[in-house]
Amino acid sequence: MNAVTSNREMMMTLGQAARIAARELARAPSVQKDEALRAMAAKIRRSAADIASENRRDLENARARELKPSFVDRLTLDGVRIEALARGLEDIAALPDPVGAVMAHWTRPNGLDFSRVRVPIGVIGIIYESRPNVTADAGGLCMKSGNAAILRGGSDSFHSSAAIVACLQRGLDVAGLPRTAVQMVPTADRDCVGLMLEGLGGALDLIVPRGGRSLVSRVQSEARVPVFSHLEGICHVYVDKAADTDMACRIVLNSKMRRTGICGAAETILVDRAGAERHLRQVIRALIDAGCEVRGDVHAMAADPRVKPASEEDWSTEYLDAVVAVKVVDGVGEAIDHITRYGSQHTDSIVTEDRAAAERFLAELDSAIVLHNASTQFADGGEFGFGAEIGIATGKLHARGPVGLEQLTTFKYQVRGTGQVRP
Amino acid sequence: MNAVTSNREMMMTLGQAARIAARELARAPSVQKDEALRAMAAKIRRSAADIASENRRDLENARARELKPSFVDRLTLDGVRIEALARGLEDIAALPDPVGAVMAHWTRPNGLDFSRVRVPIGVIGIIYESRPNVTADAGGLCMKSGNAAILRGGSDSFHSSAAIVACLQRGLDVAGLPRTAVQMVPTADRDCVGLMLEGLGGALDLIVPRGGRSLVSRVQSEARVPVFSHLEGICHVYVDKAADTDMACRIVLNSKMRRTGICGAAETILVDRAGAERHLRQVIRALIDAGCEVRGDVHAMAADPRVKPASEEDWSTEYLDAVVAVKVVDGVGEAIDHITRYGSQHTDSIVTEDRAAAERFLAELDSAIVLHNASTQFADGGEFGFGAEIGIATGKLHARGPVGLEQLTTFKYQVRGTGQVRP
Repeated sequence: MNAVTSNREMMMTLGQAARIAARELARAPSVQKDEALRAMAAKIRRSAADIASENRRDLENARARELKPSFVDRLTLDGVRIEALARGLEDIAALPDPVGAVMAHWTRPNGLDFSRVRVPIGVIGIIYESRPNVTADAGGLCMKSGNAAILRGGSDSFHSSAAIVACLQRGLDVAGLPRTAVQMVPTADRDCVGLMLEGLGGALDLIVPRGGRSLVSRVQSEARVPVFSHLEGICHVYVDKAADTDMACRIVLNSKMRRTGICGAAETILVDRAGAERHLRQVIRALIDAGCEVRGDVHAMAADPRVKPASEEDWSTEYLDAVVAVKVVDGVGEAIDHITRYGSQHTDSIVTEDRAAAERFLAELDSAIVLHNASTQFADGGEFGFGAEIGIATGKLHARGPVGLEQLTTFKYQVRGTGQVRP
Repeated sequence: MNAVTSNREMMMTLGQAARIAARELARAPSVQKDEALRAMAAKIRRSAADIASENRRDLENARARELKPSFVDRLTLDGVRIEALARGLEDIAALPDPVGAVMAHWTRPNGLDFSRVRVPIGVIGIIYESRPNVTADAGGLCMKSGNAAILRGGSDSFHSSAAIVACLQRGLDVAGLPRTAVQMVPTADRDCVGLMLEGLGGALDLIVPRGGRSLVSRVQSEARVPVFSHLEGICHVYVDKAADTDMACRIVLNSKMRRTGICGAAETILVDRAGAERHLRQVIRALIDAGCEVRGDVHAMAADPRVKPASEEDWSTEYLDAVVAVKVVDGVGEAIDHITRYGSQHTDSIVTEDRAAAERFLAELDSAIVLHNASTQFADGGEFGFGAEIGIATGKLHARGPVGLEQLTTFKYQVRGTGQVRP
């Protein structure tokens, strides 16, 4: 039996065990799931030294391989970060359980009583990079929403993730839930990702990739099961002619610079030609003064000599850095056209005091999140009031925007009758 | 330029045109869409002779190819059926428009105002067999829900479908909507299906297959875009020990025999061992007396000498005919286990006067539709009150159960602020 065959068999076994656990988890009452989450948190706190020690093994390997400092930083688990893992699980325990909620209820003239009831999706595969914190977050969110999770983190975080999963499984034990409700792929072999993308013989209902563009792109193009993901967030702020200049500067600055590395950070600023006289120079100055490189069209370059020329490529670039593209457009119509052409249907904002322009922008733009007079950095499940999120989805179906507990559920129809047959 | 290249270019052009039309359609008010639907219906009535004449071309080809009488029947459009096409479009016009509905609305402590608003999905591809009526139904449902449609019907109905699409496009014209909102693949070349399954370079958001197992199976396994479909409906009726015998016989009979060829028809009857004495013989007799062949386990065979032996294969067979499998199980728990193992997560019903048993069945069974004391043949969008449906989906995500107008929409978040930035 070679390694490939044995990995396939091992992964199929994992999938079958997850499916069985999912049936049990779907029936588990909220109190039992919350008890498991709190027991997971307690076990993580008690095991802080072990987790840190396993994390050091990963860090030594990472340093030996001379991986980038930013990579090593994301991989590192110190006492504060281990406490944050535990706290995160307790936060999930405190969220309302979406399972069992009646989403709609109606009666038909023949007396049949219909309920649309929230139920778990089933088995969710999480494929992520070497960020051990995702192990706890994703495992906790899947479990609370009644789904079994199969976790496959980056191979460089293998030992850290294994130590965390051991705590999650101990928490499941304590609450009398199956350990197989949260499983980790027990090898760093890369072909296991391919097996997950194939769906584990029908055992996987959904895959959520968490990581950079190359990971998400591979999952999107190869997965044979549904995927919740976004490839990139090319988010726009459009400053309309009727914008308040101060507000425009504040929103542009926050959208771009609050955190430049998140998917909801703005990448292109569009300024209405009819208001450019008032807004363009101010917006650009605010950005450059805050340390942002500005690449602009001829109008932006004319407004400030520090603006560098933008190329066609800049309009569709997700910088994830202190760089922004600035362009003048002819009103809300051309702004919508530009965003439709170059955007990624993630998050886009209009700044204006003109209600009609705002409503047109909110209505016509086909993005998961459209905002009026607010920063694009509100594109976050916590800011929506969803509690913890597993990511942001830009696909059209099922989950669009922040993916929290509710988005990790589906529904079924329960129909109650008194002997009705169809004529 | 060979035929394959030219089909690819033609299909890409179709996709791009659909995407442009979809943007316009997404903004179209309900009255305009309803005007188009009524104009489509009027044009179909006025063109009845032309449609019938084009249909005769298809029928002549079908007879020349010696296709099955049932196939030819489904292909046939007489005056009554052409009137039904027109009436169907008028019925869709009378349904409420799902687009623009506010599904949820809340405010956050920072004053941000969130709305989750229903929007069209975008461009929907319909791949179907040689049933010309699907052309009008699917085109009308997609258009009303604000989606552009690309229709690819079976090649044997090519002329009939083309005549119907001409009427639909005339209706769009009359209402001032783009003709490209409903397009038909203008060739019967089979490679066009493959191009649709690839997604037309990102232009297609969704594919809905309508037809038999081989068509749906191909679409499910090859599509690179989301699919709403069901491969089969292996629906069950479980007769619990606490069932009313008369009701059980009535529901079993209706579930199996009202129409045997629909996906919501029952294929397996499970009888509780503890109630078998009272129910088994009666249920079997009712079925056989109605002309149904019964294949059963040893208990069913012992109950009636006319019962034939069931093989393992029978438990997972969708007969779509007057044949049924009957098995004795140990209570609701074993019924759930059997259905979970052999079913297709479509529609399953329990007959019982025991509320606890019913609620367990409704809660634990992971099927799109679960019923208590009602026929499985209620698995139908019309019976749910959804109006017309484009099909039934057994996938877990987005649309589950009947796919009507609402299920052909998605949503976006509109966030209204007063200058909020994120701390």
